[in-house]
Amino acid sequence: MKKLINIVKIGGAVIDDHEKRDNFLKGFSLIKGPKILVHGGGKMATQVSEEMGITPRMIDGRRITDADTLRIVTMVYGGYINRNIVAKLQYYSCNALGLTGADGNIIPAHKRTNTEIDYGFVGDVEIDNINTENIMSLLKAGFIPVVCALTHDSQGNLLNTNADTMASALARAFGKTGYNVRLTYCFENKGVLRDINDENSLIKTINYQHYQELKQQNIIHAGMIPKLDNAFDALHDGVQEIKICHAMEVNVIENAGTSIVE
Amino acid sequence: MKKLINIVKIGGAVIDDHEKRDNFLKGFSLIKGPKILVHGGGKMATQVSEEMGITPRMIDGRRITDADTLRIVTMVYGGYINRNIVAKLQYYSCNALGLTGADGNIIPAHKRTNTEIDYGFVGDVEIDNINTENIMSLLKAGFIPVVCALTHDSQGNLLNTNADTMASALARAFGKTGYNVRLTYCFENKGVLRDINDENSLIKTINYQHYQELKQQNIIHAGMIPKLDNAFDALHDGVQEIKICHAMEVNVIENAGTSIVE
Repeated sequence: MKKLINIVKIGGAVIDDHEKRDNFLKGFSLIKGPKILVHGGGKMATQVSEEMGITPRMIDGRRITDADTLRIVTMVYGGYINRNIVAKLQYYSCNALGLTGADGNIIPAHKRTNTEIDYGFVGDVEIDNINTENIMSLLKAGFIPVVCALTHDSQGNLLNTNADTMASALARAFGKTGYNVRLTYCFENKGVLRDINDENSLIKTINYQHYQELKQQNIIHAGMIPKLDNAFDALHDGVQEIKICHAMEVNVIENAGTSIVE
Repeated sequence: MKKLINIVKIGGAVIDDHEKRDNFLKGFSLIKGPKILVHGGGKMATQVSEEMGITPRMIDGRRITDADTLRIVTMVYGGYINRNIVAKLQYYSCNALGLTGADGNIIPAHKRTNTEIDYGFVGDVEIDNINTENIMSLLKAGFIPVVCALTHDSQGNLLNTNADTMASALARAFGKTGYNVRLTYCFENKGVLRDINDENSLIKTINYQHYQELKQQNIIHAGMIPKLDNAFDALHDGVQEIKICHAMEVNVIENAGTSIVE
């Protein structure tokens, strides 16, 4: 039987609330076997920008990662959030190691170019170059990688990168190594909801056609779309099991959340 | 013959100057065999404090690590500086991993207490608890640990910690594992100088008695004293080879700098 690896993404809203974050981390620490945690940024980057008097540069409503913003996300995602998650996981007896995509060259990327908008220092993950070998040596040595939303261009430069996409890319890369991969997106809701204000409207199973229909009917909440797109990308690329669930259910994933299926 | 491990500390003034930093990192990447880099903070933490309008709290001329300062050093040392060093080392084909003392629980510490001044969130390294086993599994898997000036109290909290002391503590711990340890303090001068303004006044070898004499004569520059104290602590605890040298000479250490001897 193939060995199971859990790849878990935790969202920003949970990260922002230290009590929720710690409860989630406690749950994560209880998951058995090899696992990887990928985390987003939350509101702290915006808060630090404001404290430093730096106004985020927006073009057509999209945030641009200029040099100042890259410095801030490197400090906040790669420093404050990642380092504190690791310290807390160690307290929960989980042998965490905090990484960016540059550490051990685990997630190479290239700066996004040839787009209508110049997004600045934003990285698109090179899925085929994900260094599963280095990640596996860390796992085999008993470490639990905790990966923040930064990659590198292999030329010495860090790049701001979407954490949902990084989790999906890691899952796809591990799917090709002979692991049985379970990819879980954890956030502040119970899963994909028919009504964002009603936790009882959980959709337990969603397939691609169903997803397209719900999108057309504007039932899917806008914030959920990138998550689901990344989830279906992973599913279509061979990831066996994909869940979207509440952060507090991370260690009972089997019976919780929304399952993404063909 | 025992296997050699190089433990190199790089100081803040070199870190602050990106050209010097990159030249140093290029030199470091050329050192053969297992190695660990420990880095300090430089002026960036002060600069970020100023940008955020946070005034460092001083008591009797000593900087206090209050909650705001801990947040800033976690962002700057653990985030900006450490992550950028790793990205640059990867560019120089050095398989770096950026760590605090919390990652892999490599350097446990306890909050400094029972001192006249309350230093705040400052960690004193628990030398006997340094996790050489976890560090060695990283080294054996081909990774080069890059350690910043943060430790943890094993209760989920990070602590600001002197990088010179961390390098000395790592060297002492590795000295007890059967490695032949070379501890090198790299900075902006050629080594210990008789005259801080004259690079030709290099003292090539210094023993403890000589050091005491030079201190009494006020020949040793004040900034050098903690470095030398840490160096002699390591020497007296079994570290075989200790050097203080210029950052640009890191890969030709044998013939450079000041040797610390009995």
